[in-house]
Amino acid sequence: MSILVVGSVAFDTIETPYGRAEEVLGGSAAYFAVAASYFARVKLVAVVGADFPAHERAFLASRDIDLEGLEVRKGRTFRWSGRYHEDMNVRDTLDLQLNVFSDFSPVLPARYRNAPFVFLANINPGLQGGVLDQLTQPRLIACDTISHWIEGARPELEALLKKVEVLIINDEEARLLSGEHNLVRAARKILALGPRTLLVKRGEYGVLLFSANSVFAVPAYPLEEVIDPTGAGDSFAGGFLGFLARSGDLSEANLRRAIVYGSVVASFVVEDFSLRRLHTLTRDDIDRRYRQFVSLTEF
Amino acid sequence: MSILVVGSVAFDTIETPYGRAEEVLGGSAAYFAVAASYFARVKLVAVVGADFPAHERAFLASRDIDLEGLEVRKGRTFRWSGRYHEDMNVRDTLDLQLNVFSDFSPVLPARYRNAPFVFLANINPGLQGGVLDQLTQPRLIACDTISHWIEGARPELEALLKKVEVLIINDEEARLLSGEHNLVRAARKILALGPRTLLVKRGEYGVLLFSANSVFAVPAYPLEEVIDPTGAGDSFAGGFLGFLARSGDLSEANLRRAIVYGSVVASFVVEDFSLRRLHTLTRDDIDRRYRQFVSLTEF
Repeated sequence: MSILVVGSVAFDTIETPYGRAEEVLGGSAAYFAVAASYFARVKLVAVVGADFPAHERAFLASRDIDLEGLEVRKGRTFRWSGRYHEDMNVRDTLDLQLNVFSDFSPVLPARYRNAPFVFLANINPGLQGGVLDQLTQPRLIACDTISHWIEGARPELEALLKKVEVLIINDEEARLLSGEHNLVRAARKILALGPRTLLVKRGEYGVLLFSANSVFAVPAYPLEEVIDPTGAGDSFAGGFLGFLARSGDLSEANLRRAIVYGSVVASFVVEDFSLRRLHTLTRDDIDRRYRQFVSLTEF
Repeated sequence: MSILVVGSVAFDTIETPYGRAEEVLGGSAAYFAVAASYFARVKLVAVVGADFPAHERAFLASRDIDLEGLEVRKGRTFRWSGRYHEDMNVRDTLDLQLNVFSDFSPVLPARYRNAPFVFLANINPGLQGGVLDQLTQPRLIACDTISHWIEGARPELEALLKKVEVLIINDEEARLLSGEHNLVRAARKILALGPRTLLVKRGEYGVLLFSANSVFAVPAYPLEEVIDPTGAGDSFAGGFLGFLARSGDLSEANLRRAIVYGSVVASFVVEDFSLRRLHTLTRDDIDRRYRQFVSLTEF
C-alpha cells in the first residue's frame, strides 16, 4: 500500500564534530520519503523553489517516489543551518529561511487522496488538519509536531490529535505536550488527547511505544560514528510507516517490528551527512542490520 | 555460590521531587547486598560506627546476609546528603561526612577468602586491589568506580582493571575513563585496559553490555514513579551478580539474563526511598516483573 507524506523539502547547512555539509538535501518530507521508499511507494507533497536542482529531483525519482505533489514555485527553497555540539543531542539553529515554504498550503493531487497510509510531518497543525480533510479513505494517519506548535498552536494541535492514530514525537516534546516529566504519565495524558499509539523518540536511547494496554521499549543501534543526526526522527518514521504499509498488518506485534525497522533505517541515515548514506543503502543492508538488532536485544 | 561485596554502608539524607528521607540506610555495599540476597548468600565487608542501629543490622540479617565482615568502630557511620533535581539524572551532594569510613581498610574474615563471586563497590581503587590480594579462588570479579578515582587515582585504577572481569560504570564515567564521547569507541578502549566485559549503566535509559564480540542493549523498565534513584546502580549490580552466582553460568546468554534481573531489582529499589521497597519485595515479584520485561522488549 502507498504512503502519502506532507512536509518540508529543504537545503541544510550542517556542522557537526565530524565536519560540515553545505546546502545538502534535507527537510522532514525528504528524509521520510526516502526512508519509506525501501518498503512502499511514497507520494510526496511539499514545495521547493526554482533553485531545486535536477539531480536532487532525479535522486528522489530514483527511489520511485511520486513527485506529482512536489510543487515548484518561484523563489528559493527552504534553508536551515545548524551546528551540533559534541553531545549531538544538542544543536543550535544558526539560520532559518522559510522562503517558498512560508506560505505552503498543501493541496493534494486528485490521485493522492485515497492514500491509505499518511504521515503528516512537522508543519503548522492547522495545515496538517487541512490535509486530513482532503483524504477519502485513510487507514492509518500518523503525525509529528514540535515544541513551537505545542506552545504556539495548541488548540489546532489538539483538534488534530483527535483525528490521528499515531503520534511520533521526541521525549522533550512529550513532556511539553503533557506537562509531565515522567514519560509513563506523559504518555497516559497524551493518549487521552486522541492518538491510539504514541511513539516517543529518545535519540541515541531508542524509542518507546505506548498504547492503552502496552509499552514497548527498544534501544537505538549503538553506532561507533554518528556523523550527522539530522533527519533521524523523520527517517525513523519513514521506516516505521513504510514497513507497516508494505505489510498492511497493524497488529501490535507488527508495530513493534516496524519500530525496529524504523530504528534500523535511522541508524544508517546518521552515518553520513544529509541523505548521502541512502544513495548506496540496499534493502539487504537493512535486513542484515535488523538481524543484528535482534542479537543486540535478545535475552 | 556465595558473593563477597566490599564497599560502604551509610546513612543517607535524601531530597527528591517526591519527598525527603532522613538518616536512612544507604551505601553501595548495603544496596548491593540486599539486592543480591534475593539470589545468593552475600558476605558483606564494610565499616559502620557505634551509632549503627540494631534494627538495620537485623534487616540485613533477615536477608540472610553474612555480617561477620561488618566491622563496628567507635565513632559515627558514613553520612551522605543529597538533593535530586526534577530531572532525577542530576543530583547535588549537600553534605558528606566520611566518619569511620575515612580510614576503611578492608580485611576479609578468613572464611570470606574463598568467595567465588566478588563485587568491589566504589571505594579507593588501591583498597579494591588490596581486597583481591586476599582472595584464594575468585571465579568472577566485578568492580565499580567513580569519576573521583578515574581523575585522582588513575594508576591504581588501571592496575586494578587488569585483574577484574567485569567493570560496571555509568556512561559519564565510561566517557571520562576512555576520553571518548561515543560509547562504542569508549567501550573498545576500556576493554583494552583489562575487563572482559563492560556494563554501562544509563539510568532511565537502561544498560549496555560490551565484550570482545558482542553488544547487548536493554532499556530500563519504564516506571510511573521514581521516588528515589539512590542506589539504583548498586542494586543493579547486586541483582546481576546475584543471578550469576546462583546459576554459576557465565555464558553470554546468561550474562544477558543477569542484566535483566539486575534491571528488574533496580526498578523496584527506586520505587521508594532507601531500601524500603525491599522490605516487602519477594522473589515472586522479581520473577513477575522479569516476565513483564520480556513483554516490554520482545519483537
